[in-house]
Amino acid sequence: MIKVGLIGYGRAGAAVARVIEADERFALCWIARRSAGAGDAAIPMTRLEAGTFPAWLDRHPVDAVIDFSDAEAVHIYGEAIRRRGITLVSAISAYPEATRDYIRGLGRDIRVMSSPNITLGINFLMFAARMLRRIAPFADVEILEQHFRDKAEVSGTARKIAEKLDVDDERITSLRLGGIVGHHEVIFGFPYQTVRLVHDSIRREAFGTGAAFALAELVKYPPGYYTYDELLLNLIRQEIGSDVVPAHA
Amino acid sequence: MIKVGLIGYGRAGAAVARVIEADERFALCWIARRSAGAGDAAIPMTRLEAGTFPAWLDRHPVDAVIDFSDAEAVHIYGEAIRRRGITLVSAISAYPEATRDYIRGLGRDIRVMSSPNITLGINFLMFAARMLRRIAPFADVEILEQHFRDKAEVSGTARKIAEKLDVDDERITSLRLGGIVGHHEVIFGFPYQTVRLVHDSIRREAFGTGAAFALAELVKYPPGYYTYDELLLNLIRQEIGSDVVPAHA
Amino acid sequence: MIKVGLIGYGRAGAAVARVIEADERFALCWIARRSAGAGDAAIPMTRLEAGTFPAWLDRHPVDAVIDFSDAEAVHIYGEAIRRRGITLVSAISAYPEATRDYIRGLGRDIRVMSSPNITLGINFLMFAARMLRRIAPFADVEILEQHFRDKAEVSGTARKIAEKLDVDDERITSLRLGGIVGHHEVIFGFPYQTVRLVHDSIRREAFGTGAAFALAELVKYPPGYYTYDELLLNLIRQEIGSDVVPAHA
Amino acid sequence: MIKVGLIGYGRAGAAVARVIEADERFALCWIARRSAGAGDAAIPMTRLEAGTFPAWLDRHPVDAVIDFSDAEAVHIYGEAIRRRGITLVSAISAYPEATRDYIRGLGRDIRVMSSPNITLGINFLMFAARMLRRIAPFADVEILEQHFRDKAEVSGTARKIAEKLDVDDERITSLRLGGIVGHHEVIFGFPYQTVRLVHDSIRREAFGTGAAFALAELVKYPPGYYTYDELLLNLIRQEIGSDVVPAHA
Repeated sequence: MIKVGLIGYGRAGAAVARVIEADERFALCWIARRSAGAGDAAIPMTRLEAGTFPAWLDRHPVDAVIDFSDAEAVHIYGEAIRRRGITLVSAISAYPEATRDYIRGLGRDIRVMSSPNITLGINFLMFAARMLRRIAPFADVEILEQHFRDKAEVSGTARKIAEKLDVDDERITSLRLGGIVGHHEVIFGFPYQTVRLVHDSIRREAFGTGAAFALAELVKYPPGYYTYDELLLNLIRQEIGSDVVPAHA
Repeated sequence: MIKVGLIGYGRAGAAVARVIEADERFALCWIARRSAGAGDAAIPMTRLEAGTFPAWLDRHPVDAVIDFSDAEAVHIYGEAIRRRGITLVSAISAYPEATRDYIRGLGRDIRVMSSPNITLGINFLMFAARMLRRIAPFADVEILEQHFRDKAEVSGTARKIAEKLDVDDERITSLRLGGIVGHHEVIFGFPYQTVRLVHDSIRREAFGTGAAFALAELVKYPPGYYTYDELLLNLIRQEIGSDVVPAHA
Repeated sequence: MIKVGLIGYGRAGAAVARVIEADERFALCWIARRSAGAGDAAIPMTRLEAGTFPAWLDRHPVDAVIDFSDAEAVHIYGEAIRRRGITLVSAISAYPEATRDYIRGLGRDIRVMSSPNITLGINFLMFAARMLRRIAPFADVEILEQHFRDKAEVSGTARKIAEKLDVDDERITSLRLGGIVGHHEVIFGFPYQTVRLVHDSIRREAFGTGAAFALAELVKYPPGYYTYDELLLNLIRQEIGSDVVPAHA
Repeated sequence: MIKVGLIGYGRAGAAVARVIEADERFALCWIARRSAGAGDAAIPMTRLEAGTFPAWLDRHPVDAVIDFSDAEAVHIYGEAIRRRGITLVSAISAYPEATRDYIRGLGRDIRVMSSPNITLGINFLMFAARMLRRIAPFADVEILEQHFRDKAEVSGTARKIAEKLDVDDERITSLRLGGIVGHHEVIFGFPYQTVRLVHDSIRREAFGTGAAFALAELVKYPPGYYTYDELLLNLIRQEIGSDVVPAHA
């Protein structure tokens, strides 16, 4: 079992905690958050402070830290985990450039995975859509996203899919309807068939599964700095092999 | 432009002809079929006979032959194309074992691709589903197929998907409804998200696109015997690379 | 069994013939078309001419005529069926105003149903969407249609749905992809739920079922001029009753 | 504005409160619940007791009471609202027979709507499916429901749909996948077209919209006992009229 400490302040962090706790590959040892709540007596709490964190870690050792908090937190815990060889999975979406450099630097000593979107299904969808686009560049492509009424802008995920497929943003259709959490669909139109790759978010906090996946993969690697995409592609490379020559020549 | 001769007797052959003709990478030089029809004056016809075929080929040379006819035809044209180095794409679904061996043997001299199901979308669906299954073995999987009322058995494609995913056939649900041509859906259920991979056939003859894909890929290879799956995977290997080490160590 | 004569020149007419022949409520007695084909020996043919049609009708009497031909044909057969009390189902989409008046006039003596779109599923979809719009005017509504790549304009059906729902045409999204025959979807977004009404055409000639429905309903009515919508609504009125007072006061 | 008091103890009650508060047709005056929470200071609370409720009502008068609590509560507030002519919307799913009789009795003096399932979308889906079944009894019908992995039994809603459509329970397919909240789909298969009526729950508490609909309708009626179905059908009757004779005879 991989011992995990979770640094997460909000709803996403809480959702990740539920997933990690339910996954028997992991033992969730502690959650660090801004303020300790009433109903979590079973999980030891700590107020994150640079001074007290190393001692906390020594009393509550873990193999990995998952960070769903904010762009500042890594400066508090970074050195402590680097010195102890603890693996880091970070899902912070907007690090300043200097902080990003600092995190890359951690990759010289420990395993680090950092990606702004670590939803497994969405990352898979992007991969699969990119592959089909490569295989069938002649197929028509449309990206359809549906979200709750008040979502103002085109989904960032949809834009990223468009970018990965090298299609114009005009190929994105955004519908705003009631309380739809998040629906992304990439449609490939062929003359005699249609392929649809569809992702539906059930809760906005669909990150836990992605974090668990990233961590389970990451521990197989040597120290280094990795992205979510690389972990996903490596797994696929292992699955399909790298032998490009004819199999039955 | 790749010069193509099509050997096809039925509706599938006719559909393939339409796709090949519309694809500017190919020039459809002739169609061989059992009986010459009235409305195809523009395309020279021939009755396939072992004796006359070589002479026909010399007068109407092609780079590749696509075979959508029956399990016997290859014995008529096989030697002629082997001697002339012509590439072969065969979509015959049920070769007797001896014929299959014969076709593998052709692979010593010419490029041969032979697969019973050469629908591009379905083959992609199988690949993508297999990858997601590998990445997320903990996700629940269901295979849902919907076909026209009179289709008696569980879809062979659905069974093949189940086999590739290593899930029990009980995970297949078959609905029979009106005139649905062919709907296959692989559903992956995660705690907070759902991924659906969906394929809809528009016409039963959705083979043309697959044949065109196979041929366009096959001509890049040295002589040999290939399956559809190998061509697909090789393309994906080229796309994602085979480098499994950390990218930023 | 209702004896039916079909006047239809094209692919739609042929499709209607297949549906009517397969429906045991009907006996398809003859098909009138522009030119007699080779493969239809079982069905007597005639070249429609005003002079010869009455004699034809007397030799081959029917209870109803279904017209899938063109806007002119009714002038050839109109008087003959009016005098014999034969029911008329017309699916011609664009009658000139004078011809439309003439057809309404036939309604004084015989049962006449005339509507440009007699697809049962689409008409039902419009009805159901209108009802939900009435029940839940606060729900967000989007109309999504997907058709084959070369379809130039916004689907007329989608426009008609928008009109029936009293929503702006901007609420219509039109995607053009490969060979999709015809997909219409009306999405209602509520805060905690989503309702989707979806229609997929399998063949462009999905008219036969609608014609059979119209005819089976029409023969229950007194002479008069009816639209498809009226037949549909009447059936629903019969189903749900017209009693608007409390049931358990 | 209709003044509303909400009696609701749990998550459903809380969700209903949010919907009622956001709907400008209503003023949510108070919520009665088992224990007063910390974060709801803006809404006066009461502990429901038979002795104190009438006085509470006189100090905090409302036009209607919505009950999402339990099968006992009506005995506490029933007489008080009957005497004051207050409308009642009850969404309790399992009243004992004696309690049900008591509630019917309230209908002699006040407006009462009581139904176990007051989700608007699901009730509409049942209505629409029943209508299409009536119109097209020859179409193939399948009911497909998808829910979260741990849902043990076939969805009660799916069973009710089957009952309303008069199809066997064998026509229900239940898939269990990850965390799907609730997906119901009724598929009608025609020879050349397919109609799908689809309902997706976003939150298990999708009741608020249904309660708001029921209340807004109910206040238009004279005192009496009504079901959700009756309110829905009456609205549709008003929309489509009850005139079954030809419109243009």
